[in-house]
Amino acid sequence: MNTADLGLPVDVPSTALFTDQYELTMLQAALRAGTADRRSVFEVFTRRLPSGRRYGVVAGTGRVLDAVENFRFDADVIAFLREQKIVDEPTLAWLASYRFNGDIWGYPEGEVYFPGSPILRVEGSFAECVLLETVILSILNHDSAIAAAASRMSASAGGRPLIEMGARRTHELSAVASARAAYVGGFASTSDLAAGFRYGIPTVGTSAHAFTLLHDNERDAFQAQVNSLGSGTTLLVDTYDVTEAVRTAVEVAGPELGAVRIDSGDLLLVAHRVRQQLDALGATKTKIVVTSDLDEYAIASLAAAPVDAYGVGTQLVTGSGHPTCSMVYKLVARAQSADPKAPLIPVAKKSMGAKSSRGGRKWAARRPGPDGIAEAEVIGTGPVPSDLLDHQLQVELVKSGQVVAREPLDAARDRHTAARSALPMSSVQLSRGEPVIPTEYV
Amino acid sequence: MNTADLGLPVDVPSTALFTDQYELTMLQAALRAGTADRRSVFEVFTRRLPSGRRYGVVAGTGRVLDAVENFRFDADVIAFLREQKIVDEPTLAWLASYRFNGDIWGYPEGEVYFPGSPILRVEGSFAECVLLETVILSILNHDSAIAAAASRMSASAGGRPLIEMGARRTHELSAVASARAAYVGGFASTSDLAAGFRYGIPTVGTSAHAFTLLHDNERDAFQAQVNSLGSGTTLLVDTYDVTEAVRTAVEVAGPELGAVRIDSGDLLLVAHRVRQQLDALGATKTKIVVTSDLDEYAIASLAAAPVDAYGVGTQLVTGSGHPTCSMVYKLVARAQSADPKAPLIPVAKKSMGAKSSRGGRKWAARRPGPDGIAEAEVIGTGPVPSDLLDHQLQVELVKSGQVVAREPLDAARDRHTAARSALPMSSVQLSRGEPVIPTEYV
Repeated sequence: MNTADLGLPVDVPSTALFTDQYELTMLQAALRAGTADRRSVFEVFTRRLPSGRRYGVVAGTGRVLDAVENFRFDADVIAFLREQKIVDEPTLAWLASYRFNGDIWGYPEGEVYFPGSPILRVEGSFAECVLLETVILSILNHDSAIAAAASRMSASAGGRPLIEMGARRTHELSAVASARAAYVGGFASTSDLAAGFRYGIPTVGTSAHAFTLLHDNERDAFQAQVNSLGSGTTLLVDTYDVTEAVRTAVEVAGPELGAVRIDSGDLLLVAHRVRQQLDALGATKTKIVVTSDLDEYAIASLAAAPVDAYGVGTQLVTGSGHPTCSMVYKLVARAQSADPKAPLIPVAKKSMGAKSSRGGRKWAARRPGPDGIAEAEVIGTGPVPSDLLDHQLQVELVKSGQVVAREPLDAARDRHTAARSALPMSSVQLSRGEPVIPTEYV
Repeated sequence: MNTADLGLPVDVPSTALFTDQYELTMLQAALRAGTADRRSVFEVFTRRLPSGRRYGVVAGTGRVLDAVENFRFDADVIAFLREQKIVDEPTLAWLASYRFNGDIWGYPEGEVYFPGSPILRVEGSFAECVLLETVILSILNHDSAIAAAASRMSASAGGRPLIEMGARRTHELSAVASARAAYVGGFASTSDLAAGFRYGIPTVGTSAHAFTLLHDNERDAFQAQVNSLGSGTTLLVDTYDVTEAVRTAVEVAGPELGAVRIDSGDLLLVAHRVRQQLDALGATKTKIVVTSDLDEYAIASLAAAPVDAYGVGTQLVTGSGHPTCSMVYKLVARAQSADPKAPLIPVAKKSMGAKSSRGGRKWAARRPGPDGIAEAEVIGTGPVPSDLLDHQLQVELVKSGQVVAREPLDAARDRHTAARSALPMSSVQLSRGEPVIPTEYV
């Protein structure tokens, strides 16, 4: 499942146009002013978690590395920028040879985060760093939003497996990234074949109501499915009458029927009835899969129901009420020249309202209590206190333009489970609340 | 701006894997059962609008046509499906030669819709139609959600131009589709270069706070920008103190300064003050652009403010509270064989709760009142009443597998403006309400 080894289902010749126009016009103006090569530090962080949420989940880091590697302006792109007069010829010449040669540090994928956490830090010349803003934010804001919802759902599901099946409710490529982020957040599988192809995520799926309706009756449909997919398949039992369908399903497949799926009605009630009926028919090992507009609350409400797996669609791919994060990419420090020895000067916007930010290149550590459970997210710009040296969160991701932190997706998924379990128990409460640990600036 | 003439910024060799696994397993079972070639009719519709919304906007139709044309299983994809044992060899052989050869009718892009409107109708064999479910729904559910939000925003903005700038808040390719859908819904331009490249949408953008912070002071930054981009550029005036920045901006660029952008604070108050200040400085033609978490309500609240353009990000790309539609793709009729003369039998799920649907191949018409304003969305399965013949909504999009309804994106944008203006005036009220016209079944 190493993402670097798999081909793209969608061949992205370049990620360079996933960019707001102003990144290029700023570049042009800075090139002309002689400020484009000033050594700069940009940081990605969020000022707040979505209302009521207790932690965030970093996801998309691996996709960011792919995007940075593929960020280049080929002839077609240059021709477009020239034709549309987006930037001038000196800028086009600069872009044509663009490769990011700077450094990127960040929270590793799957890690949790809190308000102010410096999730990603991009260092290099102003010119080479500013161009990456839009695509980095697109990826992290989208993927982290989905992973946060997935994490709440997987916590609510206890050990029961979750199936991601939201492809039809979001953009077709957003769906692939969503399946990936859901996996990081604890989902077990996806219905989306492109996500299986691209990221090696296990794929599942058997049939829809259309299959039953295609046939002359439900028995014919079940028989056709079992003949083709075997008795271990999952039969959809709510096209007409559930009780009759369950009886027919066991008659057709025998007690070794793999599972039944329920996609409508009062799932708590229906699951209990179906379980009783299956047991009475001797199909004691046949599983029950439920799918019907589930979110983390509905999943939690089914904890005592005889349900073996949950399929989640809409609410997963829309971030369960929070389809995006509010991550920003801010210049926090810059030198007055390209000289690596020139001192970095902290900078920050200082305007009205809540949009101010803190200048300076930051480190971050999660301070554990005596029981090993996290007590605070500590963020600073000076030297790291010795007791926090071993608890720092940022890792090196790109060194002088070379990606140095590729990892299998399972590593991010395992990291998330570990990070979440090191938070106070109230982190997985579904009720609205404050971030589960405070952010301290030192 | 003809979409067929432009290259893809992202080369999609095939859309066939943007598909839920069960579409393929259903195909396998139907092939084996001998039911795969039964003539079938699938319809896309939604049972309800998002809570409180008065109309929906069809968007993504052009992208659906692209997706259907590119839906094919090449060698890499077949190898993946074989290796993962998703389907058996006869099914792989069938997929390898797959091309959609059926017919598609639907509401043209930009048209409005209501609960039950048969937005798209796909006809052909069960096998060839069922495979398209996931990707068609992904596109229509995403793009229509964005277009609906865009339409409310453009209605609220009156004639003032709206700039789409939400790329950083959504998946990088969702961003491109969002810019497209926003344009259909009435936006004037986008910050997203890929949307300009792919769809010819006008792109805009000048600078961010980072550009000011890069320089030793605000004056240097403004001077650098004006030197490079000319005095017609838009200067961002809220990095430090707005009043001082406006003064500096006019000193640097002169009264011919193109525009100033305000991205924080109480926009209503600040816009008035900045307008007074600009006028006092003689910059009476300098425009004011506002950008700061705007949605349709914030835009409406600025109607009396001296604002010349709105930049909208997060709320646009997240559908302003409704990031997806609830469109479904349902088998509504099928024959008992592939024979074109075999009668179509209406079919429908009849289970518990609200998920039942109406069988039969449907026509749709929008009945106008004496004043030409729409009175009802009329949907039927029998012959079309003679007074509605000229008011039918569905057009032919694909005929025997050939796309027959390509059009420039501007045609969809113009159609939307016309369709919205033929709705009762309360359609553009922002207050929550029922669909602005009822759906009648005849």
